[in-house]
Amino acid sequence: MNSRIKRILAKIEQENLDGIIVSFPANISYLVKFSSRDSYLVVSKKQNFYITDSRYTEEARINLERTAAVKKSDGSVFKLIADTCLGLGLKRIAFEERHLPFAEHKKIEEALKRKASLIPAHGFIEELRQIKEGEEIDKIRKAVRITSAALKFIKSFISAGRKEIEVVAELERFIRYRGASNSAFDIIVASGPNSSFPHHIPSERKIKNNEPVLIDIGVDYLGYKSDLTRVFFLGKMNIQVRKIYDIVLAAQATAIEKIRPAQTIAEIDRAARRYITRKGYGGFFGHNLGHGVGLEIHEEPQISGKENNPLKPGMVFTVEPAIYLPGKFGIRIEDTVLVTGKGCEVLDGTIDK
Amino acid sequence: MNSRIKRILAKIEQENLDGIIVSFPANISYLVKFSSRDSYLVVSKKQNFYITDSRYTEEARINLERTAAVKKSDGSVFKLIADTCLGLGLKRIAFEERHLPFAEHKKIEEALKRKASLIPAHGFIEELRQIKEGEEIDKIRKAVRITSAALKFIKSFISAGRKEIEVVAELERFIRYRGASNSAFDIIVASGPNSSFPHHIPSERKIKNNEPVLIDIGVDYLGYKSDLTRVFFLGKMNIQVRKIYDIVLAAQATAIEKIRPAQTIAEIDRAARRYITRKGYGGFFGHNLGHGVGLEIHEEPQISGKENNPLKPGMVFTVEPAIYLPGKFGIRIEDTVLVTGKGCEVLDGTIDK
Repeated sequence: MNSRIKRILAKIEQENLDGIIVSFPANISYLVKFSSRDSYLVVSKKQNFYITDSRYTEEARINLERTAAVKKSDGSVFKLIADTCLGLGLKRIAFEERHLPFAEHKKIEEALKRKASLIPAHGFIEELRQIKEGEEIDKIRKAVRITSAALKFIKSFISAGRKEIEVVAELERFIRYRGASNSAFDIIVASGPNSSFPHHIPSERKIKNNEPVLIDIGVDYLGYKSDLTRVFFLGKMNIQVRKIYDIVLAAQATAIEKIRPAQTIAEIDRAARRYITRKGYGGFFGHNLGHGVGLEIHEEPQISGKENNPLKPGMVFTVEPAIYLPGKFGIRIEDTVLVTGKGCEVLDGTIDK
Repeated sequence: MNSRIKRILAKIEQENLDGIIVSFPANISYLVKFSSRDSYLVVSKKQNFYITDSRYTEEARINLERTAAVKKSDGSVFKLIADTCLGLGLKRIAFEERHLPFAEHKKIEEALKRKASLIPAHGFIEELRQIKEGEEIDKIRKAVRITSAALKFIKSFISAGRKEIEVVAELERFIRYRGASNSAFDIIVASGPNSSFPHHIPSERKIKNNEPVLIDIGVDYLGYKSDLTRVFFLGKMNIQVRKIYDIVLAAQATAIEKIRPAQTIAEIDRAARRYITRKGYGGFFGHNLGHGVGLEIHEEPQISGKENNPLKPGMVFTVEPAIYLPGKFGIRIEDTVLVTGKGCEVLDGTIDK
């Protein structure tokens, strides 16, 4: 049994529970250290079971030997989960209320036949995942390095006449030759006015001279993600674009300066937002300053003005202030940072801004 | 208001409901004909509301002008959903029980303050989505054409010494130059023994001569998906591989022959399975024969031996019999087919098997 499962068992005992049904893929992957899909994990003091279908059982058996016994679901997976819990004699069983669909909860509950009860739980595993271990940081670091290499490479590819989607095509190719298994999310390439949409879907639009090209890219390296955004310019940056760019860049620096253990998370968001507001663009920065990054591209902690928890060493998250001027253009600058013992490290700080 | 929303309203009235909260992205995209993420749709006779956050509001307003009013969620999206329903005077509100997480249901219910009730519903929209309209078939057809072009292209790229992940890299690049916005799922390239894992994750393994290379690929074209699998051989196919290949190919032909309106779905699965079983490999074909394809890569109908509904014209699904010999190799041959008025059409039947 690994240390992550031990910590969940301690949490379960502390909450006066007998076990937990884990249904969220990233949480299962975290606990069993094996990239997991279409599966459920039952964790209990007595034994752990990994339940999946025939597509994944062979790989699971090889990878989970010491962590969990693999059960193959043929008929109703929900009845199998319930029977597994009852077989273990569990009475109070936690489930992940933010992830388990209403209907799945109902089916498991019915199959338990009042011999055990389901207790809503949330954040048990997400809380552990917020503080990255050394081996996790190494993987994120590598993911960021591949991403920054991709940004450097693409700078020379981008030219007037290239379509946004062609830029995506070259990036998707490049990252895999560098060791990534995948992109971490749909890569955003947003040129000219398209950059004013925070989550633009790359199109057949041809890039023109003298306009910004915003690229938001992350990769998956052994399950761990990265997330970076840079804005490139073909030809000359006009005065307004330059002005907005400098504001966003300074806002990011202001926020990064404040990152250190025990600092309130909200204060990081507020620092960047205050700066942008003071410059007159507060109404054009609609989203949070950032989000945690790890096994998921968006995970805890949210770097939001409402998050009053303190920063802790080992947290990894993005810092991505932005200004979007509808119909004109948008600027977002994003790095992935690690909270250290004393302050913070911008992962792969070698890449230009 | 478009015809899809009209049909949902008819369904709602028939079920004695006042409205529905749609939370599943593919279902929302289907109803509003706009690719949707991180949003909720409230459909009611009086008015429809599309609720999302600042990242998507601008694009949504442009695209949904005639379909739904856009509301921006700043604080609790669940309170906003509840308030929207109460503002419309809805009393009996359906929600998608297979998709809405337990905790979200609880939050919306609490915010409704017993002034309205939430009624579990499932399959309302999925049922409509099973029968593709002309414009949907056109998009799937195009997605299949891009996919089969990619398979033809990659045949000349594959050679001994190439890594599986490099093959994925070239495919990911190619499909975007041909008009796809994305791959429809993580492309599978499984060489040699890796092909015995139905859902192998492409690795750094180098392809060798005289072994099978299984490629399972689909693309996204304007939201619609395709799904094809072919097995290539470098050098000579050995006798056992040839034998298994021929069984799988004949099993697929047997199943495809049976596809016509009013045929029971289970019978299609059974036809292929019977053939493989008769040849002595029934225990090595663990998954369903296929699955519906459309806005999702896996959707209704499941082509399973348990599915007793009849086939209907306009259904689109995969036919993918397989034999996996653990530790040795696996063969899967997959096409995407359309049920027509009289029988079925294999989409892009021009591609070699």
